[in-house]
Amino acid sequence: MTSYLLQKHPYSTLDKPRDHCGVFGIYGHPHAAQITYYGLHALQHRGQEGSGIVTSEFDQKAGKYRFHVHKDFGLVNDVFKDDTIVTDLLRGQAAIGHNRYSTAGASDNRHNIQPLVVNYRNGNIAISHNGNLTNFRNIRKCLQEEGTIFQTTSDTEIILHLIARSRETDQVRQIIDALNQVQGAFSLTILTNDKLIAARDPHGWRPLAVGKLGKAFVIASETCAFDIIDATYLADVEPGEVLVFDRGALDTSEIKSYHLKKSNEKPHYCIFEYIYFSRPDSRIFGENVDPVRRKLGKTLAREHPVKSDDPGDRVVVINVPDSSNTATIGFVSENDKLGNDSKYEIGLIRSHYVGRTFIQPAQDVREMKVKTKFNTVKNVLKGKKVVIVDDSIVRGTTSKQLVKLVRDAGAKEIHFRVTSPPIRFPCHYGMDFPSSNELIANRCNGDVEKIRQELGVESLGYLSLEGLLESVPHLNDQSYCTACFNGDYPTSIETHGIKEEYEV
Amino acid sequence: MTSYLLQKHPYSTLDKPRDHCGVFGIYGHPHAAQITYYGLHALQHRGQEGSGIVTSEFDQKAGKYRFHVHKDFGLVNDVFKDDTIVTDLLRGQAAIGHNRYSTAGASDNRHNIQPLVVNYRNGNIAISHNGNLTNFRNIRKCLQEEGTIFQTTSDTEIILHLIARSRETDQVRQIIDALNQVQGAFSLTILTNDKLIAARDPHGWRPLAVGKLGKAFVIASETCAFDIIDATYLADVEPGEVLVFDRGALDTSEIKSYHLKKSNEKPHYCIFEYIYFSRPDSRIFGENVDPVRRKLGKTLAREHPVKSDDPGDRVVVINVPDSSNTATIGFVSENDKLGNDSKYEIGLIRSHYVGRTFIQPAQDVREMKVKTKFNTVKNVLKGKKVVIVDDSIVRGTTSKQLVKLVRDAGAKEIHFRVTSPPIRFPCHYGMDFPSSNELIANRCNGDVEKIRQELGVESLGYLSLEGLLESVPHLNDQSYCTACFNGDYPTSIETHGIKEEYEV
Amino acid sequence: MTSYLLQKHPYSTLDKPRDHCGVFGIYGHPHAAQITYYGLHALQHRGQEGSGIVTSEFDQKAGKYRFHVHKDFGLVNDVFKDDTIVTDLLRGQAAIGHNRYSTAGASDNRHNIQPLVVNYRNGNIAISHNGNLTNFRNIRKCLQEEGTIFQTTSDTEIILHLIARSRETDQVRQIIDALNQVQGAFSLTILTNDKLIAARDPHGWRPLAVGKLGKAFVIASETCAFDIIDATYLADVEPGEVLVFDRGALDTSEIKSYHLKKSNEKPHYCIFEYIYFSRPDSRIFGENVDPVRRKLGKTLAREHPVKSDDPGDRVVVINVPDSSNTATIGFVSENDKLGNDSKYEIGLIRSHYVGRTFIQPAQDVREMKVKTKFNTVKNVLKGKKVVIVDDSIVRGTTSKQLVKLVRDAGAKEIHFRVTSPPIRFPCHYGMDFPSSNELIANRCNGDVEKIRQELGVESLGYLSLEGLLESVPHLNDQSYCTACFNGDYPTSIETHGIKEEYEV
Amino acid sequence: MTSYLLQKHPYSTLDKPRDHCGVFGIYGHPHAAQITYYGLHALQHRGQEGSGIVTSEFDQKAGKYRFHVHKDFGLVNDVFKDDTIVTDLLRGQAAIGHNRYSTAGASDNRHNIQPLVVNYRNGNIAISHNGNLTNFRNIRKCLQEEGTIFQTTSDTEIILHLIARSRETDQVRQIIDALNQVQGAFSLTILTNDKLIAARDPHGWRPLAVGKLGKAFVIASETCAFDIIDATYLADVEPGEVLVFDRGALDTSEIKSYHLKKSNEKPHYCIFEYIYFSRPDSRIFGENVDPVRRKLGKTLAREHPVKSDDPGDRVVVINVPDSSNTATIGFVSENDKLGNDSKYEIGLIRSHYVGRTFIQPAQDVREMKVKTKFNTVKNVLKGKKVVIVDDSIVRGTTSKQLVKLVRDAGAKEIHFRVTSPPIRFPCHYGMDFPSSNELIANRCNGDVEKIRQELGVESLGYLSLEGLLESVPHLNDQSYCTACFNGDYPTSIETHGIKEEYEV
Repeated sequence: MTSYLLQKHPYSTLDKPRDHCGVFGIYGHPHAAQITYYGLHALQHRGQEGSGIVTSEFDQKAGKYRFHVHKDFGLVNDVFKDDTIVTDLLRGQAAIGHNRYSTAGASDNRHNIQPLVVNYRNGNIAISHNGNLTNFRNIRKCLQEEGTIFQTTSDTEIILHLIARSRETDQVRQIIDALNQVQGAFSLTILTNDKLIAARDPHGWRPLAVGKLGKAFVIASETCAFDIIDATYLADVEPGEVLVFDRGALDTSEIKSYHLKKSNEKPHYCIFEYIYFSRPDSRIFGENVDPVRRKLGKTLAREHPVKSDDPGDRVVVINVPDSSNTATIGFVSENDKLGNDSKYEIGLIRSHYVGRTFIQPAQDVREMKVKTKFNTVKNVLKGKKVVIVDDSIVRGTTSKQLVKLVRDAGAKEIHFRVTSPPIRFPCHYGMDFPSSNELIANRCNGDVEKIRQELGVESLGYLSLEGLLESVPHLNDQSYCTACFNGDYPTSIETHGIKEEYEV
Repeated sequence: MTSYLLQKHPYSTLDKPRDHCGVFGIYGHPHAAQITYYGLHALQHRGQEGSGIVTSEFDQKAGKYRFHVHKDFGLVNDVFKDDTIVTDLLRGQAAIGHNRYSTAGASDNRHNIQPLVVNYRNGNIAISHNGNLTNFRNIRKCLQEEGTIFQTTSDTEIILHLIARSRETDQVRQIIDALNQVQGAFSLTILTNDKLIAARDPHGWRPLAVGKLGKAFVIASETCAFDIIDATYLADVEPGEVLVFDRGALDTSEIKSYHLKKSNEKPHYCIFEYIYFSRPDSRIFGENVDPVRRKLGKTLAREHPVKSDDPGDRVVVINVPDSSNTATIGFVSENDKLGNDSKYEIGLIRSHYVGRTFIQPAQDVREMKVKTKFNTVKNVLKGKKVVIVDDSIVRGTTSKQLVKLVRDAGAKEIHFRVTSPPIRFPCHYGMDFPSSNELIANRCNGDVEKIRQELGVESLGYLSLEGLLESVPHLNDQSYCTACFNGDYPTSIETHGIKEEYEV
Repeated sequence: MTSYLLQKHPYSTLDKPRDHCGVFGIYGHPHAAQITYYGLHALQHRGQEGSGIVTSEFDQKAGKYRFHVHKDFGLVNDVFKDDTIVTDLLRGQAAIGHNRYSTAGASDNRHNIQPLVVNYRNGNIAISHNGNLTNFRNIRKCLQEEGTIFQTTSDTEIILHLIARSRETDQVRQIIDALNQVQGAFSLTILTNDKLIAARDPHGWRPLAVGKLGKAFVIASETCAFDIIDATYLADVEPGEVLVFDRGALDTSEIKSYHLKKSNEKPHYCIFEYIYFSRPDSRIFGENVDPVRRKLGKTLAREHPVKSDDPGDRVVVINVPDSSNTATIGFVSENDKLGNDSKYEIGLIRSHYVGRTFIQPAQDVREMKVKTKFNTVKNVLKGKKVVIVDDSIVRGTTSKQLVKLVRDAGAKEIHFRVTSPPIRFPCHYGMDFPSSNELIANRCNGDVEKIRQELGVESLGYLSLEGLLESVPHLNDQSYCTACFNGDYPTSIETHGIKEEYEV
Repeated sequence: MTSYLLQKHPYSTLDKPRDHCGVFGIYGHPHAAQITYYGLHALQHRGQEGSGIVTSEFDQKAGKYRFHVHKDFGLVNDVFKDDTIVTDLLRGQAAIGHNRYSTAGASDNRHNIQPLVVNYRNGNIAISHNGNLTNFRNIRKCLQEEGTIFQTTSDTEIILHLIARSRETDQVRQIIDALNQVQGAFSLTILTNDKLIAARDPHGWRPLAVGKLGKAFVIASETCAFDIIDATYLADVEPGEVLVFDRGALDTSEIKSYHLKKSNEKPHYCIFEYIYFSRPDSRIFGENVDPVRRKLGKTLAREHPVKSDDPGDRVVVINVPDSSNTATIGFVSENDKLGNDSKYEIGLIRSHYVGRTFIQPAQDVREMKVKTKFNTVKNVLKGKKVVIVDDSIVRGTTSKQLVKLVRDAGAKEIHFRVTSPPIRFPCHYGMDFPSSNELIANRCNGDVEKIRQELGVESLGYLSLEGLLESVPHLNDQSYCTACFNGDYPTSIETHGIKEEYEV
């Protein structure tokens, strides 16, 4: 409901799908907020527009629990730039944190920044959410009819209302009761006065892992957050599982585990986590990301190889730094193995100093803005047959700009290769795409030849859905959500979003 | 629930009771936010620790109402230092605003800053509150039992919950229904999608006035806010009255008026508004403050005159700038009329550049901090019999420091005169005193002689309660709340505050 | 030379002449920077647009002196809002400080903020300057011809160049040599590695006092800076005197005193220091300001009394807070003594929360800006014959606005009284007036009747120059500079300012 | 001379030599400041601690030139985060800019931020400098003896003094005169009222290129700054050359070129520009950086190949992102060609969200700080024989941390390869190394075996000096400066630095 001047993070202007956040939690560590700060840092790629930490401290003198909160718009380093916030104010042995990617445009609601923190009859409670609920519009309507007020436009808030309104008296039961009512994707860390709770929806769209740091327990969206704090990976929170960390867990190292009602549903892991979202050094859904991403490149090379015209003049394969680095290595090695002389090259240099704000350039210097992110290495590209390997194409705008840059650098031919199928359907489980008619694959009616022409390249090859599924880990009874490619949604979807009727 | 490093405003270190805020509202003006900004500026003395404005805009394109909010810790000028916030973002023809004085100590809850803004089944709603509810702890408990979550520790939030849970369907009826359930002091401005509502509790502790600016209607805690915007005072919102400003009111200039259930209760105007809170250039409770404050000084002079020892050496009467300026003039003129040669003098110079932060001085420079606020004019005081006229004594700390300053400047004798009786009881209606045992009048068991000794002055004279009541306007069936002087509370009081059990 | 967006301090928009700064110095105190911070705070009224402190520390480990500097645009509290700057960084037992009022408009040079600090063959040297040099354009030109570069547009910089280019080897002699070459007004504190030097030009336009704080010596523009730090006033730095504070002075309490060449010139104290610049609680030119200012009011009352029309309806005399407070008291008492029934009243309330920035109001709310500073107390003014006592009229714009406010409040008649003669000539010694043709007294050709009409008042009375001179202290061979009233400049003036040819 | 709390940029804690800045200049463009802003952005890698832009504008109304300046500590985006500074204030058709890397430690002098701007007899002049003067201590001493004052501790300031003191009357002649007196490294852009001058010392240590953007001329340290603004590379400024861009140059496209006295000296290009400083997409010293860097990797592979133990288990070669990316590609391809099965892998993930400030971790979380920059991809490294290719080793601290990370990830063996010889001597021409005894190659007396042990790797291979020289472009009469490797300084060096005797 708040209007403010949001300075959009430049990364958000990239033509990429965007995930809905990273979550973190820790229980039983004297520097809980500091550990969370470092954990959030490692999860920065999952959300750059807001960050927050909540701690629970037992105030000996007052004989009661106290929550401490700090959250704001910006990167982790911006939000917590004043050291004393983390070291002095966010006291307590338990904490949860959140990095947020917001979907709204130029105006946004400060209250939406997570963790959300409220007080109800059982005390303080805070929540960090990654994912998207699919029935929150209906629940919100019901709650409103019963006289509930809402302070955010976030789907997450309804979980708190459902907990508070549960008829259960035990707090963990209240949480389970609430989670049994919501549908869609949720990987959560919840902080109460004396407990940390981790929960994942029965489909398991978003990853969530448990680790150990000394005696303390840690929860994170991706295991790269464990590496930065030297924690050990224990296991994934299972789809439909609710884990409770409390004093007893610390003493006995036994974690209480509960299961949500539909936890026997077939999982639907978000396949885009492997394609783009997760960091290559993370382990998600039980597997390391790096080899999967490499395999995507290899399969793509088999489906759409690029041959050199002349054995002495090898095909130059370049990555789009840094998201397609690993897949490109896979592509080159397989393309080579297939007898197509090619070599991995660094043809695009990415500037990492790009900050938050950019001067709006005058008419005649408009193109500079694009170039602040990427520049070409001309001698690598000049006169060459060039393959650009990217992980996905959404609107196509960035792709077109990259193609222009590479063409201007003197490339003879440009062959665009994408390690995912064409994106044609909206995601209702926490991935943010532009509206359907902005998707280039839709604008071109899924006609790859038309897309090729629009990009202006000599050839264009998408990884097929079959190739994609063959490249990701094959696990027993588990399958992946591929709805954004084929519209095959594992759940029913509310027909029109809350946004349309409740945008304040 | 948020912990943060609050830089306390220096004025809040003054040894004065403190009011709980100023409210403002406007309906039907193209620059609603700008007018509100200026109105809040004029009400700055009623709250310096936080400020906010909410506007309602009808978005033609989307065909619906949108609320815009900006609020933060700090003075009006700090919170709105970026012009574009007021001029570009806070669009709309209706607005409410709030200046807040927070009672909490080093930690405070950002969410408590008003106006509070939420969404419920009838749309957006925002509220600005001056006063204190006395039964909010019980209501909060009931609401919690029913599954309500709270985002603030503010008593104001329960009004919003009660509105949302009302069984009424008409929005104005919902508001009246809610206000009929709460007890204590409230002067409110409420903004809904298409209405501005002003409401005042049946006792009328805090002032609230209605004015007109062109076709637009304005509401403010004090009329000095009308002067700054060139609005015309129409009337006070009556105790127990609810006024509704909507499109119809603009067209017909007729304002719908409703009355709360107990609106026939005997009013209990806060007498401290006349003594100290309100600006002398305001009109409150239907009367101008300036002549009342002058009368307080006169009555005090009659009760506790100070005679010169020698007709050629007149008694020097000094004010404590700027709060006792007017009363001092009254004191001098009456003391003179009584044949006690005396003259008004400026013996204390107050620095108005005192900013928000102050360097904590080293041991040997500790006293400088006090002196950054006041310095003495030595030639005015040296060798003189000096009368210091102040409006009230709370803890006594500032008074003692002033006495020391005046003594160091060479005063022969110091006679302290106070335009109010000794403060001995807490206020439950929106005035912030320190805990009872910090009040000097309590520490000295109400023994004025003991207080005199502690202050270290030759004589000390408080205005009597009778003298006070005789000096303020005598209005028909209305009376004043004097509970802080005599403990005579007009309502029952919850025995222990919410704070003790719910401080997060 | 730096362009930046200067947010002008609102006080600088007041229609008042403005002084060129306050200076401070301390030698021999372990918390030199802290003391300077408080001293500058007390001198805040002499300059609000920039502030700085320089300390000299002997670095035991490195065996050499080190200067520490912090300065910026803003009030003392803004510039030093980070405590650690004063307590941790500005180490050393000697310090000088400066509050600056800048004359430039929307763009200004950050390098001009004082103290200026440089390094030359004898080590580090820093300087704080109050006043204006009258031959700096010629000296600057000579220095430029010899190949000198300038980093500021400040006249003060040439003093540093002259010191560095002096043929003397002894540092104090270098300084005296330099000061003998410059003409015009200077009250200086100079810091070298191991000395603090105070110097005042032979005419003594600007005040400069010496005090003692324990064993340490302090220097300040006004003695109110001694009060805040509990230092004792010792003496004024005499016109043409140079005082040197060093280790020897600490040990023996004997201060070395030198005299500039023309130190036998007849002094020309700036009479405006008594009228407006200095704080009433200061002692300058050897006398307290408060009684002088009171006397100005009395003399004015004798020259231009205002009689009541009806003995029962006393004339209301109001001050313009806070600059004419004291003079108004003098006016009332004398007017009364003359048999003109009148009373001192508070008819204007001044807001002290006015911050640094103000939203530019829309066309229809333009007047609010004026009203953010002053509001009227209507019941004091309504139907009355009102006397406004002010200290000076420069452009006349603020005066006209005040008259309008008082008229709108219902005053029957308005009589404007000014405790100084009409200002008609520019000041070349450190006081900042607008250009001659902006001065209302010039625009009206000195015709008081015309000014009266422009202000729109029933009568207008300026204090005569004779009355002014009779009211200020009469000291033996000393006289005052009254050039701004009668154009009688004590020195020759460079015909056109440096500004015209060197504004970068 | 200023002490302040410098928040060191994290990149500056990297164990790398650091260059002394990037310079930029433009003449004849209506958006000179905007272009400079983008140019500085592309040169951000050459200096991250301060940034500034100066423009020259001809003020039609005043009939004279005006300089506009904005500079501050921080990245380009931080310093110019307020758009209006660049678009509204920095008016003019000519501009110079500077990115600075400061060598000082925790305290630094704000005045040292470049461009330096002063005024002298011929008007305004500003200068941006990349490089280090070797005789500035002697010149400074002479200038001080003659009475010159210094406002910075920068060697650059003496150039301005020498220009101002030149006996020449023509401004360009003055500049040439000044540059003929200084020794050491300088690549300069100088702005006067109506000219832009580019100059490079006769040895040509630092690069400097000329380009064209429409009719305008541009100057930059590296050509990557031309790419971002779509300018065309024309030529390098030759060693010893002075180019003058003025109105005539715009009209005729003919640039006046002058030569410094010793411009026939043998050039000594800084070889480290090819190894590490310059961006791979730049062209410096007339050649593209990318192929040189690749060649360094290839030569290194020939000198220190790493063989796989088992043909089926290829050696894993990893880069240290992003500085050794290109060289690693060269290393792998050559190592492979030599029959040593190896593959390029991404084994280290670098976080690019690392901001300016970092919370100082508690004792038990100390190691996290390192990990905020790099994480390992475990499955790539586990059980492998790993080659880390880096560009240089300075202190060795970062190298040791990387080795530990890779070891912890399960690497079987670690072979460290460095594309430069051991660094043993300080640079006097603008590269910043730590003191000699902090260099690991010195601590180990140049004993590579000892360094290997300290790093804790199975083998360590530095590129030989011969190999280095063979890999960089061979140009006719030109040679490289390799003093940091062999102590062979092309010029005499002042025996002790200015710093020791003049650190303020």
